Amino acid sequence: MPSDTGVAVVTLTTDFGLCDSFVGVMKGVILSRCPGARIVDITHLVPAGDVRAGAFALLTAYRFFPKGTVHVAVVDPGVGSDRRAIAARCSDATFVGPDNGLLSWALRSEKGVVVRRIENQRLFLSPVSATFHGRDVFAPVAAYLANGGGFAEVGPETGEWIALPWPEPARSVDGWLGEVVHVDHFGNAITNLPNTALEPCCASRFTVLCGRRRVPIGSCYTAVPKGRAVAVPGASGCIEIAVNGGNAARSFGLKRGAKVRLVAPGQPSRCIA
Amino acid sequence: MPSDTGVAVVTLTTDFGLCDSFVGVMKGVILSRCPGARIVDITHLVPAGDVRAGAFALLTAYRFFPKGTVHVAVVDPGVGSDRRAIAARCSDATFVGPDNGLLSWALRSEKGVVVRRIENQRLFLSPVSATFHGRDVFAPVAAYLANGGGFAEVGPETGEWIALPWPEPARSVDGWLGEVVHVDHFGNAITNLPNTALEPCCASRFTVLCGRRRVPIGSCYTAVPKGRAVAVPGASGCIEIAVNGGNAARSFGLKRGAKVRLVAPGQPSRCIA
Amino acid sequence: MPSDTGVAVVTLTTDFGLCDSFVGVMKGVILSRCPGARIVDITHLVPAGDVRAGAFALLTAYRFFPKGTVHVAVVDPGVGSDRRAIAARCSDATFVGPDNGLLSWALRSEKGVVVRRIENQRLFLSPVSATFHGRDVFAPVAAYLANGGGFAEVGPETGEWIALPWPEPARSVDGWLGEVVHVDHFGNAITNLPNTALEPCCASRFTVLCGRRRVPIGSCYTAVPKGRAVAVPGASGCIEIAVNGGNAARSFGLKRGAKVRLVAPGQPSRCIA
Repeated sequence: MPSDTGVAVVTLTTDFGLCDSFVGVMKGVILSRCPGARIVDITHLVPAGDVRAGAFALLTAYRFFPKGTVHVAVVDPGVGSDRRAIAARCSDATFVGPDNGLLSWALRSEKGVVVRRIENQRLFLSPVSATFHGRDVFAPVAAYLANGGGFAEVGPETGEWIALPWPEPARSVDGWLGEVVHVDHFGNAITNLPNTALEPCCASRFTVLCGRRRVPIGSCYTAVPKGRAVAVPGASGCIEIAVNGGNAARSFGLKRGAKVRLVAPGQPSRCIA
Repeated sequence: MPSDTGVAVVTLTTDFGLCDSFVGVMKGVILSRCPGARIVDITHLVPAGDVRAGAFALLTAYRFFPKGTVHVAVVDPGVGSDRRAIAARCSDATFVGPDNGLLSWALRSEKGVVVRRIENQRLFLSPVSATFHGRDVFAPVAAYLANGGGFAEVGPETGEWIALPWPEPARSVDGWLGEVVHVDHFGNAITNLPNTALEPCCASRFTVLCGRRRVPIGSCYTAVPKGRAVAVPGASGCIEIAVNGGNAARSFGLKRGAKVRLVAPGQPSRCIA
Repeated sequence: MPSDTGVAVVTLTTDFGLCDSFVGVMKGVILSRCPGARIVDITHLVPAGDVRAGAFALLTAYRFFPKGTVHVAVVDPGVGSDRRAIAARCSDATFVGPDNGLLSWALRSEKGVVVRRIENQRLFLSPVSATFHGRDVFAPVAAYLANGGGFAEVGPETGEWIALPWPEPARSVDGWLGEVVHVDHFGNAITNLPNTALEPCCASRFTVLCGRRRVPIGSCYTAVPKGRAVAVPGASGCIEIAVNGGNAARSFGLKRGAKVRLVAPGQPSRCIA
């Protein structure tokens, strides 16, 4: 469907990289079928085959697009096999991609989600290759939907689709237990600890424990001297661990899955980073 | 010319990288002269000066764009010298770039191609620099054409332009001899062996020989266990060598030009990869 | 304001990289508020926090866009602190970004520049995060302006804003003293020595001295044999040091800030590169 602004917007999130013609080809297919589409890259540098990283990129992005945007995501190591393809629609957005969990984090907090299997081959390019469904299936279906095509046309509704587990943080006696869910371009480690966990009292009296390090909470990256670590309420809605002017992930060896703890006031909070 | 969708589409294929303002500047020039243009990046990460890699990217992409799209390609180590610039038009597309072979693989299978030397300086930015014809020559000429400007205006028709030899695969007693023509972002090695070579009989009984390795044909990347090599009928129309969940080029040291053989049924086909 | 072509153009120059959803999110915000905007990436690979590199990218790009283009630049290590945000307008362009010098090289040669502090929170996303003003402040303000919103609405005019010093070249007894201001994707070292310095007499009789090397002036990269160094009047308006078919910065260890001299005819000019 065209967005509520009257302009059809299609976003792309893939692991296709930027060295080949893959992404351009998808855009050519989309523009061939929906000439007015505005196509926006979320990222094409999802690590190859890393469905969780793709799911995270989509999760952090989709809310900021006009109502009616069609989000295409293709991180698809099972392309050409019998894995299914799905399209999902919630009140403000439509999603198109393989049924491998890639769309599931974005859909997680939406209500009234309708999921359909993509099975209508009349919408596909022909023949469909075994290696590039981004071009042959997902781009043409997205263009069809962005151009106002009926959602029910893509295929039958289904209640069965794959959801990735979201790593929920856990309450502990002294605060929260969580983990790093993403390391960004700057080396900031985004955790699953919600910014709202800091609200009960003065945020600056909390501490984040990360390995043996105690990282103080600060209001922004420069709340600590250059080169020092700080945990900041992040733009994603979760606390992130950064180094002012530096790269926290590289300095501390932080990777996705690293355990972190948020310690409430009254616990030791000396910064040893 | 505007495409058949009524929207002018211009694609860009360059070796300019993404760190500098080169690509953005070309887009600024195009939008200044053709405000309605939809500009699509094919890739800007062609290895510096690698005309063959640029020609391959364009070859694999141009067919998927709306009729009337103007494709600008700039991999141009001879910029500022006496190398010529050309524009070429076939039934569905127009191409603009240096006359160094960059456009020639896309033009190879087209009929009724008309090639003109780009010589009309009134279309260029002024002055023309010695180092950035993407900005000063190719972008403004592409915008002129995308905006509906007359093709004959760019310069005189010519029958002399540089064509890169396409590495044709050869028939052998037991199948085909070919080579790797491109390694993609995933480390898949795209060969020049056409998928159609598998058609005479059951595809799965063929084998690809690559160095000392025997790689079985599979219908998709996951037709073999994780970490194993498989040769798959690729989306480009040619067979590609992959590792399920891995990087074939890195694992096997495959580079462009590496020789491969497709061996027909009846030949030994044990996979030793 | 919409550009003079009737199409609103917004450019983005950031250090956000291309791995995360940051850039896509900014575009979603812009399209939500200015649905007709054409959004052009200048570059998102400014080295993290390198304000000078961002200022240089913007300087070399902004002139080539349609009149009325809104240029958003975000290299913003002080995000969330008390650093100010500014919008600046000159006759042909509007700029939006942090007040840390990032916009100052583009503004340097413009006359009649009006600078305003961005303080009107009604234009921002709500709440404003401490880590991503590209999304919460700069994108919505840019969209507002690109959509025809009144410039005075962003905040009060100010005469105080941070300007980076531009490294002016100096005249010497035998020519000019300058330095490398940027190393580009090809390894070409862009100096601050103006091409016009070559004009008084035959350009080819000048020499550039770079460390102990004497690099001859040439009309283009291929004016010297492959693998040899040449100094060329560059597309940025300044002389650049290149290696024909090679990477000058890597070969010679050239970095930003490296001193170079332009030596007038009559001085020794043997090329030892």
